[in-house]
Amino acid sequence: MKFEVTILGSSSATPVYNRNPTAQLLNCNEKVYLIDCGEGIQQQMIRYGYKTSKIDYIFISHLHGDHYFGLIGLLSSMHLNGRIKPVQLFAPAPLLEILELQFKHSDTILRYPLEFTPVYADENRLIYENADVSVETIVLNHRIPCTGYKFTEKKRLRKLLVEKLEADGVPVSYYPLLKRGVDLDLPDGKVILNADYTIDSNAPKSYCYCSDTLADDSYLEPLRNCTMLYHEATFLQEMLDRANQTFHSTALQAAEVAVRVGAGKLLIGHFSSRYKTLQPLLDEAAAVFPNTELALEGITFEI
Amino acid sequence: MKFEVTILGSSSATPVYNRNPTAQLLNCNEKVYLIDCGEGIQQQMIRYGYKTSKIDYIFISHLHGDHYFGLIGLLSSMHLNGRIKPVQLFAPAPLLEILELQFKHSDTILRYPLEFTPVYADENRLIYENADVSVETIVLNHRIPCTGYKFTEKKRLRKLLVEKLEADGVPVSYYPLLKRGVDLDLPDGKVILNADYTIDSNAPKSYCYCSDTLADDSYLEPLRNCTMLYHEATFLQEMLDRANQTFHSTALQAAEVAVRVGAGKLLIGHFSSRYKTLQPLLDEAAAVFPNTELALEGITFEI
Repeated sequence: MKFEVTILGSSSATPVYNRNPTAQLLNCNEKVYLIDCGEGIQQQMIRYGYKTSKIDYIFISHLHGDHYFGLIGLLSSMHLNGRIKPVQLFAPAPLLEILELQFKHSDTILRYPLEFTPVYADENRLIYENADVSVETIVLNHRIPCTGYKFTEKKRLRKLLVEKLEADGVPVSYYPLLKRGVDLDLPDGKVILNADYTIDSNAPKSYCYCSDTLADDSYLEPLRNCTMLYHEATFLQEMLDRANQTFHSTALQAAEVAVRVGAGKLLIGHFSSRYKTLQPLLDEAAAVFPNTELALEGITFEI
Repeated sequence: MKFEVTILGSSSATPVYNRNPTAQLLNCNEKVYLIDCGEGIQQQMIRYGYKTSKIDYIFISHLHGDHYFGLIGLLSSMHLNGRIKPVQLFAPAPLLEILELQFKHSDTILRYPLEFTPVYADENRLIYENADVSVETIVLNHRIPCTGYKFTEKKRLRKLLVEKLEADGVPVSYYPLLKRGVDLDLPDGKVILNADYTIDSNAPKSYCYCSDTLADDSYLEPLRNCTMLYHEATFLQEMLDRANQTFHSTALQAAEVAVRVGAGKLLIGHFSSRYKTLQPLLDEAAAVFPNTELALEGITFEI
């Protein structure tokens, strides 16, 4: 099953030429989940060859503009392009009021259902699940209510030991039940034990997205043993005071979080416009957590 | 006196790669007036080498997103960049409510004064003037309340006939009064007639901006004899029905307007995303009004 994330923007609020504010596309089994939606996302999707029509789910972490100012334009264009398929939007409650006010004054009545689920930054909650994935909030520590999101694959089916099944003449029609872990009691009294013919699948993978946060202990629990962690790294450690003042993290702190939670891999992003080159941020993080990469625009990371 | 307009975007609502929604920078005597503010304007200004800090006046024609979705990001960045100089914003009244709601939920208290003047689409009005320019609204005919804007240079000072002044020994200290058209009665009984030493300056130039409109008779009066007319030309004439349905104009209609009002020059823009090449739009307009140009991004037109 495909489980990968594509970076569309990883700059912080102040604009820099050719660096865009935060937006990521998560592809899980060919369903597309948009995570945050900074200004310019439509141009970024065209640039990197993605269709906005494929997005069915949108998750917004908080209401600082560099994380959602591209949303009203995206939703408007979906309407103009004739979309009728619903969009599921998960975001802080006031966003609906902001969007509805803008639709009202542009005299826009969306052709497609915009299904809105308010997200609250009081406790971590399961807010969505389908056959492929579950999504939980991660309450972060920022200047305004802010939640990250944890995407966890659903438990996969068991793996069949096909050679053994064929050698013992087990009919193919039994395979789907065996994959689901069922023991089969046949009419002739014979028993086919699942444990004899299958093994456990790989553990479900998980992707944790921590958009904007002061690095502290409050949000570590849901990150434990995640396959891939995206963590903001707005500043270098030499600007720790500024990071604390603005409720942001340094690259070193992002790496320390990855170590503490036992993440498989770390992506860092939300780079301050002051850094013309990003290598020092990568170097600082990778010295502590070697399996770190920069969340560069256009790059797709397999989770 | 500098009087020129730079195009930052001239695409209509549906995004096309590397074509941006409407925004224009008017430079009048080194003061910068932003006219409409589509999404992505900050990237466009960086791309073409303009500083957002220079913008002191913003005029929004109407509340369709392709004319204002870049504004909240621009105003937010001005705040983040430490601006303290006021911004004067002229726009339909509901825009203030939209902006204030977004500032409230991002916990943003602007460091600079945002001086808001509501603009109403009921009758043409003088809404602003300073030493350089006056600005009047042009009520257009669109699906929602929409005004264009007419920028007219202030009447210039009279031109001095310097050789004659020098030959007759008129003191230089008299020049400023002569430029203003004053006759001088000297203490010795001598009279210096202004008409002997000055001639009229060039007529004030004017720029009319018609963002989105059905082409009809209702808005022609303020356009008469303007130096330069920007008129939307969303479609080719073969799509006249679609233009009428959506309260837009064709390239042919834009040219006919320019002919009827005796414009000095015509810029066309607001191109539909369906046109991969814009030459047919230019050809259609220029066949009727030869002094037509495409409002292409990055180009500066002297008015």
